Amino acid sequence: MQRPSGRQADQMRPVTLTRHYTKHAEGSVLVEFGDTKVICTASVEAGVPRFLRGSGQGWITAEYGMLPRSTGSRMQREANKGKQGGRTLEIQRLIGRSLRAAVDLKTLGENTIYFDCDVIQADGGTRTASITGACVALVDALRSMKKRGAIKQIPPVQMIAALSVGIYQGVPVMDLDYPEDSAADTDLNVVMTDKGGFIEVQGTAEAAPFHAEELNAMLELARQGIEQLFVAQQAALVD
Amino acid sequence: MQRPSGRQADQMRPVTLTRHYTKHAEGSVLVEFGDTKVICTASVEAGVPRFLRGSGQGWITAEYGMLPRSTGSRMQREANKGKQGGRTLEIQRLIGRSLRAAVDLKTLGENTIYFDCDVIQADGGTRTASITGACVALVDALRSMKKRGAIKQIPPVQMIAALSVGIYQGVPVMDLDYPEDSAADTDLNVVMTDKGGFIEVQGTAEAAPFHAEELNAMLELARQGIEQLFVAQQAALVD
Amino acid sequence: MQRPSGRQADQMRPVTLTRHYTKHAEGSVLVEFGDTKVICTASVEAGVPRFLRGSGQGWITAEYGMLPRSTGSRMQREANKGKQGGRTLEIQRLIGRSLRAAVDLKTLGENTIYFDCDVIQADGGTRTASITGACVALVDALRSMKKRGAIKQIPPVQMIAALSVGIYQGVPVMDLDYPEDSAADTDLNVVMTDKGGFIEVQGTAEAAPFHAEELNAMLELARQGIEQLFVAQQAALVD
Amino acid sequence: MQRPSGRQADQMRPVTLTRHYTKHAEGSVLVEFGDTKVICTASVEAGVPRFLRGSGQGWITAEYGMLPRSTGSRMQREANKGKQGGRTLEIQRLIGRSLRAAVDLKTLGENTIYFDCDVIQADGGTRTASITGACVALVDALRSMKKRGAIKQIPPVQMIAALSVGIYQGVPVMDLDYPEDSAADTDLNVVMTDKGGFIEVQGTAEAAPFHAEELNAMLELARQGIEQLFVAQQAALVD
Amino acid sequence: MQRPSGRQADQMRPVTLTRHYTKHAEGSVLVEFGDTKVICTASVEAGVPRFLRGSGQGWITAEYGMLPRSTGSRMQREANKGKQGGRTLEIQRLIGRSLRAAVDLKTLGENTIYFDCDVIQADGGTRTASITGACVALVDALRSMKKRGAIKQIPPVQMIAALSVGIYQGVPVMDLDYPEDSAADTDLNVVMTDKGGFIEVQGTAEAAPFHAEELNAMLELARQGIEQLFVAQQAALVD
Amino acid sequence: MQRPSGRQADQMRPVTLTRHYTKHAEGSVLVEFGDTKVICTASVEAGVPRFLRGSGQGWITAEYGMLPRSTGSRMQREANKGKQGGRTLEIQRLIGRSLRAAVDLKTLGENTIYFDCDVIQADGGTRTASITGACVALVDALRSMKKRGAIKQIPPVQMIAALSVGIYQGVPVMDLDYPEDSAADTDLNVVMTDKGGFIEVQGTAEAAPFHAEELNAMLELARQGIEQLFVAQQAALVD
Repeated sequence: MQRPSGRQADQMRPVTLTRHYTKHAEGSVLVEFGDTKVICTASVEAGVPRFLRGSGQGWITAEYGMLPRSTGSRMQREANKGKQGGRTLEIQRLIGRSLRAAVDLKTLGENTIYFDCDVIQADGGTRTASITGACVALVDALRSMKKRGAIKQIPPVQMIAALSVGIYQGVPVMDLDYPEDSAADTDLNVVMTDKGGFIEVQGTAEAAPFHAEELNAMLELARQGIEQLFVAQQAALVD
Repeated sequence: MQRPSGRQADQMRPVTLTRHYTKHAEGSVLVEFGDTKVICTASVEAGVPRFLRGSGQGWITAEYGMLPRSTGSRMQREANKGKQGGRTLEIQRLIGRSLRAAVDLKTLGENTIYFDCDVIQADGGTRTASITGACVALVDALRSMKKRGAIKQIPPVQMIAALSVGIYQGVPVMDLDYPEDSAADTDLNVVMTDKGGFIEVQGTAEAAPFHAEELNAMLELARQGIEQLFVAQQAALVD
Repeated sequence: MQRPSGRQADQMRPVTLTRHYTKHAEGSVLVEFGDTKVICTASVEAGVPRFLRGSGQGWITAEYGMLPRSTGSRMQREANKGKQGGRTLEIQRLIGRSLRAAVDLKTLGENTIYFDCDVIQADGGTRTASITGACVALVDALRSMKKRGAIKQIPPVQMIAALSVGIYQGVPVMDLDYPEDSAADTDLNVVMTDKGGFIEVQGTAEAAPFHAEELNAMLELARQGIEQLFVAQQAALVD
Repeated sequence: MQRPSGRQADQMRPVTLTRHYTKHAEGSVLVEFGDTKVICTASVEAGVPRFLRGSGQGWITAEYGMLPRSTGSRMQREANKGKQGGRTLEIQRLIGRSLRAAVDLKTLGENTIYFDCDVIQADGGTRTASITGACVALVDALRSMKKRGAIKQIPPVQMIAALSVGIYQGVPVMDLDYPEDSAADTDLNVVMTDKGGFIEVQGTAEAAPFHAEELNAMLELARQGIEQLFVAQQAALVD
Repeated sequence: MQRPSGRQADQMRPVTLTRHYTKHAEGSVLVEFGDTKVICTASVEAGVPRFLRGSGQGWITAEYGMLPRSTGSRMQREANKGKQGGRTLEIQRLIGRSLRAAVDLKTLGENTIYFDCDVIQADGGTRTASITGACVALVDALRSMKKRGAIKQIPPVQMIAALSVGIYQGVPVMDLDYPEDSAADTDLNVVMTDKGGFIEVQGTAEAAPFHAEELNAMLELARQGIEQLFVAQQAALVD
Repeated sequence: MQRPSGRQADQMRPVTLTRHYTKHAEGSVLVEFGDTKVICTASVEAGVPRFLRGSGQGWITAEYGMLPRSTGSRMQREANKGKQGGRTLEIQRLIGRSLRAAVDLKTLGENTIYFDCDVIQADGGTRTASITGACVALVDALRSMKKRGAIKQIPPVQMIAALSVGIYQGVPVMDLDYPEDSAADTDLNVVMTDKGGFIEVQGTAEAAPFHAEELNAMLELARQGIEQLFVAQQAALVD
């Protein structure tokens, strides 16, 4: 088995997390998994959706988008089409659910944190990069809330990170890029906490069905890669 | 641990599959998992989407909907709202992907099979019931295509079925109903082939993160339940 | 003249009204006029539209839909299209108007009853079947409101029922099915009260214009058929 | 009984039909029924909808709109709302059906005539005024088609006209204006041919149900009024 | 240089401003610049958009539309398309901005004036005719507000008017009609106050870029033409 | 007069043009005017819109968007809202028109160049920065077309650039940033060619009307600034 990129089966692409990437948002991170580049912003607003009003608790939600030419051939702009596609909605629901697992919503007061994950260049793994970058933006957003007095103290954050793994030409490989993703037998997206628990596990057989042992091999690979992501997040946050 | 329904942890709800439920569709199955009731129709049309024209191969796609009062409180009708929600799109993408794994699209000629899974009463597990029922409708649709000469012979079908399992009050349980689904710690939807392979595995931590051993316990439970679904499908098909 | 179904000119299809068809709605009726099958639910919610707030009176409204494969060839799902078609809107306005004639809105308090009429199998006469079934669901909804204390007593209900009649091959016939409806010279939908008054009369010349005497013959035929519908409604309600 | 306008029960409002009201359309008529003013244009385009291609026959369709301040209080512009309301769609379907009864579509060749009926001032009866005015625009459009060689000869036109009648304070009255329409017990829209046949009869009980004798009285009143409309159409067409 | 209409380079088309054109609106003006005809209504409603609530000041906004057959070939109705096009939005933003310059919004109390400019016949210059006509409707609306007591006194109005000029076959010309507009090298829309100040200047090179001296020649021509428009507005208002 | 940024009246913000900013597009430029940052991509596709098919000529069009948190407070995502706002449409029409002036469409063959200008950080002048950056992306796109054989030779490009100027506290100033734009008396956007001609001139009085001499002073200031932009474009293109 030869990966198109020449990487080892258990080798991730270079990961960078650039904080304060844009100036307006309470948290703003450019996350790069190789050639995949996503701007993740966290915007804090007073108030919560109707179903939480008066509850004293906060809310976290996420939106995801791709610039029309973030991809190899230009996609139609969703704002022009007049609706977000199924893939977009599926991804932003995943991002939102994952981030809600990172912090106890009761500690936020009646504030909402909106995450916007906008892909400026896509090369596979945009949803997992988004989650990984957004969790760093979350920390900055909480710090900003504390500074502005929106919360009295920064609540504990359960760091989360995400990675896609798969079976490529019969071999479990870490951190699929686009050429691998298109050709993989199986694709597995894993979201974990830095204590080693799973938040989401989404596996899809693209070609042949997969079996329990393959699933477990992929989960182990994901675990190893995500550990590296936690290191990268911590490094970014101490800067 | 006491399940709200009084069922055993590894006990499914009664499953029924009623073929020829409505008269117009090439395949039409009412699937019931306890109080969850879904009408699954398969509609065959000549022609394929643009990206497959001239390829000689067929296409399978699915749509999902809930009647406004299939649920405990009335939901707004999506046709009236002017768009399908994220949950709807996520589910119908899952159904379509799963059914495309059941048959080699090359054997269909340039025909499209549309699956419509419409929930008339919801009590948890609507997406897994939909997949299980739609696969039976697929077989009827293929028989109808053969009869009408749209295909020369019925291609081999890899039967698929789906079940939701979860961790409820710390215990892995089979076939979540709505009260369990709302309160579960973890929710796992599994789609399998009758040869024992996984097509989709989608696990979500609702409360606390879950771990590999819990995942494996849930997968095993799912495997056991889905075996029963294959028996029910076969029984329905020999009628 | 020979009707495609072999029925007499003044013969209706078998009519069944199945109450409590689904479990969540305050009223839930499966109505069948031969092969035409419609699920009619009545959902009660506290509150009224803005223009009635503070008036102390209630509101009744209706929505109508067809499952994509309720018909001979699959129709595009309106939720997917992003809008309800003109025929759908026309029918649901008719259903709503008709049901508002069945009960004095002042007796409902500031509550709204939503009717959802969803066609699961179509063979002509779906709008008239919907009205006939929904009026039974209305009675169940009022009983449920009384039980829950939303109203102090069940207000008087003016039963309404509806039937389509037409001129087929020059002869007035009762209860058009789809083959007749497609070929009829004239199509007349009639909504009546059980005291013999008209709520709606909608006649359309499909081929040649029609005249007063034909209109009167059709109205008389409608009156006869609708009397049978009132009997069926009463029978269903005493069960 | 005293009509708000002081008119006799069987008295219409002054009717005017101004041809060539705007310069671009093949037919363009300003129709006035008292203070109700509608611009009716007929636009001819080569080609027919997909379902008629290759059939050699033509098509007629209609759209209806109201300027936002054609009414007593401003209505939201439908173009801004992003959809046409149910009343609009219902009315334009009625106009289209009615005009398709005026001419044999086979005589039009594969051409489409689009009618646009835009209400610039509303005072009741806009749908019936629209039909009456559009039928005059149809004649002009056919003359223009002949002139341009789109058809070899002008096909026979079955003139149609429409009027609303109703029961106001217990008395059948002709040509309801807005104050009467709002207060009427029953409202009946009638579309007829100049040979005395009915194309459409749409009666709605607004307050109490109505009976056969009332219906017949209203139909007779409509017949008398519509005869006057045919005279006005003929007068306009000989100018 | 010969203008298609035979007009002199500095000659406007005949301008008419007909007040009270329709009866419901607080201000209603038919404005004609030659064959361009626009109905401009001003509708007054109590209340202001959310961002102004409690400010004590009023708001002015505008919408623009074209009847489908106001033009040489029929355009699709925007209400049917489900959205207003870019040109429509651009024009109505310009009209709204211009009218907000005519009166101090603080003098209106918390009332909103909606302008609707609907083109019934188009021959170039519809946006400038709209602004010119709407400013007259504004005066009538203010008078009506005073009469109804919505404001205590009529605030001072800075009259505004607008004209399009251009370079046609190398020569600056006034008041472009449609044939000129389609063929012009440059098109300039100018909105001015009757004190000689500019509110908007929008110039577009259609063929070749234009230069400062050409711009100044066009602005001078616009100034001359707009002076005539102010005379026409005053004449209309004294009637 | 003191500018909020401390700049001189005739001083631009630092301008950078980074080519090859993302890897997929035929042209991809990050343009920065101070804190305003826009990604401009040019995407080349074979084929032209319907109205140009068979003409042998090409087409250029543009879309514009802002990331939700490119601004001081988060804006709703247009893809989520289901439509692009009036401001967005107005800006993208301006960008498209401007770029069509840069190259003779006949030299492109039947190819379309789509420009996407996506604002990742906004601080005033996003539309003028977009035009300036997109024109550089155009040159790269043409080079790529030549390389791939889509065109035989690179056609002459008329470089264009754009700048906003305004009157701030009574003084004409160059290159408005957001604080100035919000407070300016007059705002003027100017698009020019490198030969000194105007492509677009759009001036808006925000507070008081402006006069010819002010317009001329602003135009002169724009001319000076745009000359600097042409230098920056040339420098970027020789790298």
